[in-house]
Amino acid sequence: LTFDLAGVPRVLKITLAYDGTRYVGWQRQAEGSSIQGLLEEALARFEGGPVTVHGAGRTDAGVHALGQVASAQVAAGHDVSDLRRGLNASLPPDVRVVQVEDAAPDFHARFSARSKTYRYAIRNAPLVSPFEYPYVCHVPERLDVTAMQAAASRLIGTHDFSAFRSAGSEVKDSVRTITRSEIVRNGQLPTPNSQTGLVVYEVEGTGFLRHMVRAIAGTLLEVGRGWRTAESIAALIAGGSRADAGATAPAHGLFLVSVTYD
Amino acid sequence: LTFDLAGVPRVLKITLAYDGTRYVGWQRQAEGSSIQGLLEEALARFEGGPVTVHGAGRTDAGVHALGQVASAQVAAGHDVSDLRRGLNASLPPDVRVVQVEDAAPDFHARFSARSKTYRYAIRNAPLVSPFEYPYVCHVPERLDVTAMQAAASRLIGTHDFSAFRSAGSEVKDSVRTITRSEIVRNGQLPTPNSQTGLVVYEVEGTGFLRHMVRAIAGTLLEVGRGWRTAESIAALIAGGSRADAGATAPAHGLFLVSVTYD
Repeated sequence: LTFDLAGVPRVLKITLAYDGTRYVGWQRQAEGSSIQGLLEEALARFEGGPVTVHGAGRTDAGVHALGQVASAQVAAGHDVSDLRRGLNASLPPDVRVVQVEDAAPDFHARFSARSKTYRYAIRNAPLVSPFEYPYVCHVPERLDVTAMQAAASRLIGTHDFSAFRSAGSEVKDSVRTITRSEIVRNGQLPTPNSQTGLVVYEVEGTGFLRHMVRAIAGTLLEVGRGWRTAESIAALIAGGSRADAGATAPAHGLFLVSVTYD
Repeated sequence: LTFDLAGVPRVLKITLAYDGTRYVGWQRQAEGSSIQGLLEEALARFEGGPVTVHGAGRTDAGVHALGQVASAQVAAGHDVSDLRRGLNASLPPDVRVVQVEDAAPDFHARFSARSKTYRYAIRNAPLVSPFEYPYVCHVPERLDVTAMQAAASRLIGTHDFSAFRSAGSEVKDSVRTITRSEIVRNGQLPTPNSQTGLVVYEVEGTGFLRHMVRAIAGTLLEVGRGWRTAESIAALIAGGSRADAGATAPAHGLFLVSVTYD
């Protein structure tokens, strides 16, 4: 028995940015075009055969990514720069490979992830720019962003997030740890013709349940509108009932910002 | 004979922003959706009958606007804020009415215009963001932006711009005055994974011939690539031959920024 170095698989770490507008989401579906499907097809051209890729976060239809990470086991001996260029030549312009790196043989984009950061963008203004509407949730009514910040900070910690999980989810364990939850940009409600009222929420955690960030964003929006208080968040988490939390905010305001690894 | 104030027409000045990607351009065409057509239909709902609108600049298919101005003669007695809200409710989200104002009875968006400003955006980087590609011209090769600026400044003044006019144009007089022509943002060519290389050209003038700004942008790009010198611009203008100037740059990098009136 010898160590067969030639048998060690080559694993790629692929960082992607995409506009989710036209897609059914990260995950391959029976109908429609998925980011995973496009990337697998682009990689298959290098491999001359089928390739499976794993994504760090399964972004829903309409959700965007600035730094999604995918892993794939390949045989292709191409240089990582050539792979990046080649993949981008195959992919449509609204899906871009930002970086390709060689990773450890046991690297897996989802299981090796230490944390993920999501961003939810709200345009708190009477008008949304024609260039921005696919990337923000539009709220024309004045938001109390100070109350939203107070509510956001109450989500930090290790909690059972059942109140913020999508119905019908198959994952058993709904305990997750949120390490950061804050309004990172607090735009004042502007004058009717200006475009400065951008409110951006960011959340970082070890993992997220299905639709969890959108349920949190929807709940924060209800706090901002004065429909519920920042103080009510603790009881909401303790109660664990999805019906008690806010409506799921629209997908198109959500971005997967980055994924960190050890 | 008395002055019949009730007979003085109400003229609206309407400022619009739009993403030109999905449209055949400003002007109504036999086929496809135009900005003029959409605005006329939206206004007709207030008027209960047909309305004709005039645009300051007839942007081509794919060209965007931050501050297009349109004029329309109407009877509708609605408040300008209600008109703005109502028009935006009728228009698709990639066409927005930024402002509606009452104008002088002889106001005409095109004939009353004193100057127009256009912007041409170039992403001088190996990669274009998935969120940006419909709004920039992508040039991966390093551009000499200093030479482009030198060439741009040589366009200022009153010249016969026949060398930069589209073939088949019907306008007889090709003399125009450019009052400002400069690189307003000079992004250095960045590292492969950064996105900082934005080069933006702006030009202001009393009027522009068909495709003139795109022909100028295409010529400046050829200067930036080293295919022609900044000094060659004077001879190019003097020669007056469209074949001697650069290729027409793609429509999607162009924005009508603003229109000024006395």
